[in-house]
Amino acid sequence: MPDRITLYTAKICPFAQRAEIALAEAKAEYKRFEIDLQNKPEWYAPKVNPASKVPAIAYGGPDVPPDQPSPESVKIAESLVLVEFIADLFPEAGILPKDPVKRAQARFFIEGVSSKFIPAWFGFQMRNAPVEEVYKAIEYLQSLLPESGFAIGEFSAADIAIVPFLARARVSLLNDIGAFPEGEGKKVYAEITGSKFARFAKYQEELFNRESFKSTFDEAYVTEAFRKRFANIRDQAK
Amino acid sequence: MPDRITLYTAKICPFAQRAEIALAEAKAEYKRFEIDLQNKPEWYAPKVNPASKVPAIAYGGPDVPPDQPSPESVKIAESLVLVEFIADLFPEAGILPKDPVKRAQARFFIEGVSSKFIPAWFGFQMRNAPVEEVYKAIEYLQSLLPESGFAIGEFSAADIAIVPFLARARVSLLNDIGAFPEGEGKKVYAEITGSKFARFAKYQEELFNRESFKSTFDEAYVTEAFRKRFANIRDQAK
Repeated sequence: MPDRITLYTAKICPFAQRAEIALAEAKAEYKRFEIDLQNKPEWYAPKVNPASKVPAIAYGGPDVPPDQPSPESVKIAESLVLVEFIADLFPEAGILPKDPVKRAQARFFIEGVSSKFIPAWFGFQMRNAPVEEVYKAIEYLQSLLPESGFAIGEFSAADIAIVPFLARARVSLLNDIGAFPEGEGKKVYAEITGSKFARFAKYQEELFNRESFKSTFDEAYVTEAFRKRFANIRDQAK
Repeated sequence: MPDRITLYTAKICPFAQRAEIALAEAKAEYKRFEIDLQNKPEWYAPKVNPASKVPAIAYGGPDVPPDQPSPESVKIAESLVLVEFIADLFPEAGILPKDPVKRAQARFFIEGVSSKFIPAWFGFQMRNAPVEEVYKAIEYLQSLLPESGFAIGEFSAADIAIVPFLARARVSLLNDIGAFPEGEGKKVYAEITGSKFARFAKYQEELFNRESFKSTFDEAYVTEAFRKRFANIRDQAK
């Protein structure tokens, strides 16, 4: 029986949503505390995560209010570390399968998300870097997908690692929020959901329909937050 | 009982040594095949690892010569994925402990190695980037170490992730092989093994004494290979 869990998170943050999806998959009981990333509470870095990022988990210790973290709980940070941690705490949730080969395939997919997709997407969104890098990353990930189902067949940590980024990319593209030229967003979204990426688009659709994703994604909030946060990004990137 | 393992590796490569150390810790039986990174065999990318990097493992399938890989074996790549895979195949080797908190702490240390130490070290070695970044990364990792023992106390994947890089950094610094100014190497080595980093230096010494490290590190070979490979790097970095 796992110990007490407090999750420090932020609705806008794709890394943080990974931990939320994993906890939802595990049907874990936990306290959720929203961190305002533009105005972090003073106690957060010294008492929870010295890197001052979300997500972080306080695990164990006495039952305290999240904004008064106890020194007796263990603090754990980094989204992928947390997904593995939640998978280890709740093995029956199947966040990682039992078969070592399947586990390796999930982690290999995640490596592609980290080293290829995320840098390419952030480059395009934040600095108007060539969209071809995004297409290449998606083509690569598409090549790893099985004929049907999720990244390794059954839903797993691999899917948890990517879906928060795909959901935010969709918001960014369909609302034309980013450093890319005005009007580009919808064209790029049409391309990545078009015939060249049909298998990937089907995968994305199934990800967006997963209950653990839906219950942890507030599209209206993220859209509004993106509008504010990236209000001047097109001018800045010029 | 794990299936047949063939490891594709290269003595010079720190990433590849991670897999070798993990296999040594597990006392696994496996075939070792050295890939000449300057002159890779034609069959390697199409039949083993499309990314054409080491390490990679061919797992299962029929008993074939390593240079004639069978399509029936599963091919797995990426050093950290392989360390976790070997940990999963041989749970009794304790490459990752059983306790989810300890496993998370090992993975968190690895994240620091990947995102802080390796880029700082490669920057200094290959491009004469500021050595202060290396010191900062070591200071950070030092702050994570317990009072004694390895990264999380007992030897683990965290130690496997860093020791091949520390060993090659030592070769590079003591032999003054790198893009940094002539004569800098020994000074930097003195600094990182000096009083400011005393805890880290003790840790490094214990890593270098670990049997699984020693049996998989050929210092004379790596020194000679570094001399050849980085022969002109100081001029190139100017």
